[in-house]
Amino acid sequence: MPKETQEGITVKKEDNFSEWYQQIIQKAELADIRFGIQGFIVHRPWSFKIARKIYEYFEEEVEKDNHEPFLFPIAVKEKHLTKEKEHAGFTPEVFWVTEAGSETIEERFALRPTGEAQIYPMYSLWIRSHKDLPYKGYQSRITVFRNEKVTRPFLRGREFMFFETHDVFSAHEEAVEQIKKDLEMAKKIMTNKLKIPFLFFKRPQWDKFLGADNTYTPDTLMPDGKRNQLASTHDLGTNFSKAYNIKFVDKDEKEKYAFQTCFGPGIWRQLAALIAIHGDDKGLILPFEIAPIQIIIIPIMSAKNEKESKKISEYCEKIKKLLSGYKVQIDLSESSPGFKYNHWELKGVPLRIEIGPKELKSKKITVKRRTDRQGKTVTFKSLKNEIKKQAEEINMQIEKSAEKYFKNKIRSASSLNEIKKIILAYRGFIRSPFCSVDSDGKECADILKEKTGGAVVCGTLFPNAEKPKQNDNCIVCRKKAKEIVYIAKSY
Amino acid sequence: MPKETQEGITVKKEDNFSEWYQQIIQKAELADIRFGIQGFIVHRPWSFKIARKIYEYFEEEVEKDNHEPFLFPIAVKEKHLTKEKEHAGFTPEVFWVTEAGSETIEERFALRPTGEAQIYPMYSLWIRSHKDLPYKGYQSRITVFRNEKVTRPFLRGREFMFFETHDVFSAHEEAVEQIKKDLEMAKKIMTNKLKIPFLFFKRPQWDKFLGADNTYTPDTLMPDGKRNQLASTHDLGTNFSKAYNIKFVDKDEKEKYAFQTCFGPGIWRQLAALIAIHGDDKGLILPFEIAPIQIIIIPIMSAKNEKESKKISEYCEKIKKLLSGYKVQIDLSESSPGFKYNHWELKGVPLRIEIGPKELKSKKITVKRRTDRQGKTVTFKSLKNEIKKQAEEINMQIEKSAEKYFKNKIRSASSLNEIKKIILAYRGFIRSPFCSVDSDGKECADILKEKTGGAVVCGTLFPNAEKPKQNDNCIVCRKKAKEIVYIAKSY
Repeated sequence: MPKETQEGITVKKEDNFSEWYQQIIQKAELADIRFGIQGFIVHRPWSFKIARKIYEYFEEEVEKDNHEPFLFPIAVKEKHLTKEKEHAGFTPEVFWVTEAGSETIEERFALRPTGEAQIYPMYSLWIRSHKDLPYKGYQSRITVFRNEKVTRPFLRGREFMFFETHDVFSAHEEAVEQIKKDLEMAKKIMTNKLKIPFLFFKRPQWDKFLGADNTYTPDTLMPDGKRNQLASTHDLGTNFSKAYNIKFVDKDEKEKYAFQTCFGPGIWRQLAALIAIHGDDKGLILPFEIAPIQIIIIPIMSAKNEKESKKISEYCEKIKKLLSGYKVQIDLSESSPGFKYNHWELKGVPLRIEIGPKELKSKKITVKRRTDRQGKTVTFKSLKNEIKKQAEEINMQIEKSAEKYFKNKIRSASSLNEIKKIILAYRGFIRSPFCSVDSDGKECADILKEKTGGAVVCGTLFPNAEKPKQNDNCIVCRKKAKEIVYIAKSY
Repeated sequence: MPKETQEGITVKKEDNFSEWYQQIIQKAELADIRFGIQGFIVHRPWSFKIARKIYEYFEEEVEKDNHEPFLFPIAVKEKHLTKEKEHAGFTPEVFWVTEAGSETIEERFALRPTGEAQIYPMYSLWIRSHKDLPYKGYQSRITVFRNEKVTRPFLRGREFMFFETHDVFSAHEEAVEQIKKDLEMAKKIMTNKLKIPFLFFKRPQWDKFLGADNTYTPDTLMPDGKRNQLASTHDLGTNFSKAYNIKFVDKDEKEKYAFQTCFGPGIWRQLAALIAIHGDDKGLILPFEIAPIQIIIIPIMSAKNEKESKKISEYCEKIKKLLSGYKVQIDLSESSPGFKYNHWELKGVPLRIEIGPKELKSKKITVKRRTDRQGKTVTFKSLKNEIKKQAEEINMQIEKSAEKYFKNKIRSASSLNEIKKIILAYRGFIRSPFCSVDSDGKECADILKEKTGGAVVCGTLFPNAEKPKQNDNCIVCRKKAKEIVYIAKSY
């Protein structure tokens, strides 16, 4: 079989999302899962560059919001990991370093499952006075480690990409303000740059980050209708400051425990959403700014006509130079033009320019979009301007398509039976009346989960929760509903 | 004791470098060694930002040289670690992950001590044909792990900052060319940006990277006269391609083992050199481009005169806005101006502007350099232009001072006794005739080390080795010298 025909994705996304996802990860050269240790994957250049761009967006935003970057070790001391009682819940899933060379080390240490237990003992040394507050720190481009049973590239790993802010305040109102800012930052990047649709939730009390008072998350839906949590920000109250002794002398000269928040955009999760929501049966589709290569130029040359080939090649270089503000590449490899088209469509390059004898003669250039394979033919002189227009067009197409996709996945139900049916047929978000999102609602949530094969209460919309109608009853216990919640099966 | 007087460094760099280094690490808030696991340090924002800048310089250079970024897991499989016989020498210093939660994991894995053993098994899958070559990949902003006995911030750690390129070629000449390019990149950054003086060496055969055919390094000297290796690039020949099975089908359709190189700028080591070589008894001195804050504006306000204070504050903002292309900060904290001067001198901020009632009245602004505490008084209108001049001036001063420092540390000796005396009095590089840098010179190197309390042969200058004179004899065996080598005690 010629290499050409082996390259493409062999299933339709709609028919078999799971297989489609597995194939695109491999064929678009995103990750290599042949590393040989389960849940530890190789980020190949194409996915790494996309992830790096997402990292850069978040770095820029949090630094504008006065966060200082730092870098903590990969290690956590055992006694720090278990200091906050609920947070100690991470212990069953941490990896332990116990040996060095051929010897057992004196005090084993864990690979961080998240940063709190390593960062807060230092905050306790750094923060002394109200003058030191607010203190806003973050670390980016790190990985964390959790011994997950089932792993899947960019969705669940034993090692995965991480980004975390850790903020300390003298008053709870400031912490609440920060949570809103965190969500605004996430929204700005995910909506404007990544074109990923989502809903903001306040998680129910029984489904918070270990140790938090409240957890807030933007969640999207994958093509198989399962929820993908894209980020999370947590109101830690004084739970951790009490456990790790983070105190400050306030203006009134009294020593007080600090209020804390932490925010973690899920770099992997956003990458997974980007791949899965925008991609089609031909491969990735990338928003213009995110694409590692924005414009691919494909020369169509005949080996027989060397003189003409040289001219085509020069013309391609001239175009590349004209577009030097963009990420442009000329594909000079030995493959056939058809192979190249498929290859760069698979990789999701937003715009394609083909230059052959015809284009050389007519002095016209055709720019084709990855999204709908349509485009426009323009003169060399107006090309730069046209690229700008086409970039906007492609972004708009991606955004519209994603919005439509997302809306189609949100349904309402007012009984458990309805929910079961929707889950069997579509999954997605199901908007339903529910008795309570405080701890007294947990029993109903457990029943829901059991009866639906795993659907969970995602939470109430945030910051503006919807109110149930007068006669709305909880879909489980049929008591009067205090909340409108969203229900979904989850990754 | 008021906080002000506690802040400064209490020893002179010349009198006690070791103590000076320890104090500057802590007092300039570079690293926190109180993390509680030996050799694992916290990079505080000030050092992190400097390191990030160094990383960015290298990322830019290697990408210009067509290296693609990727990210490998932190883990290495045991069987991969020991595949290349000499490289397996890393095994005694690796950390092992053996447990997850409360269970022993099926197959323990190591934390990477360097990337070869994780990257080359994948290269063996990715590289098939001469069309895939050269393949140039790199990973940046990662850390690696070695169980070192003695640790010291930025010089030797159990976890330390890492950057590595891994290149694959079809011919050895291309590998040799790459090594020269690697050294040129290192030179460009270390000379132009970091102002760190160094010599390029080809290491003797007995002191190569484990598994390499040849190792090349730029080495500098620390104020205590000890050698600090700033980077290294290695000609791996086909040693690793044979061990990891990296083969390609060449144009002649024969399958061949690939030639490899790898290059690792020592981010920590460069940071250590930057701190130690440029710093003085008042604190850090940073080249202008490297400084996390380039210009600090210090308002001198009286609490009694609110109206004037407001005007001063506004004037500072106006200056900050004028200098918006630079990294500028106004220090509005409650400390005294004297405290602020000391604080920002400790941190090495290149330029300082003080704005008080006098400056407000005269409409003149004084720009002071960190290096020699001299400066210039200019009008608001000419300030921007003056900053540019002062930035150049400060860089020139740092460069000149470092060059003078370095030259003073290079001496010549033609006998073992002379070497002993120099090492007792000054250390530094000692230029000497030596019998051989091939494996037959190892015996003399061992004697040298023993008789001098640890001095080693750094190597011969590269690319242009010096030739010994007709009657030069090896400083150890007194046989005719084949080489001029440099000798030093090392970190």
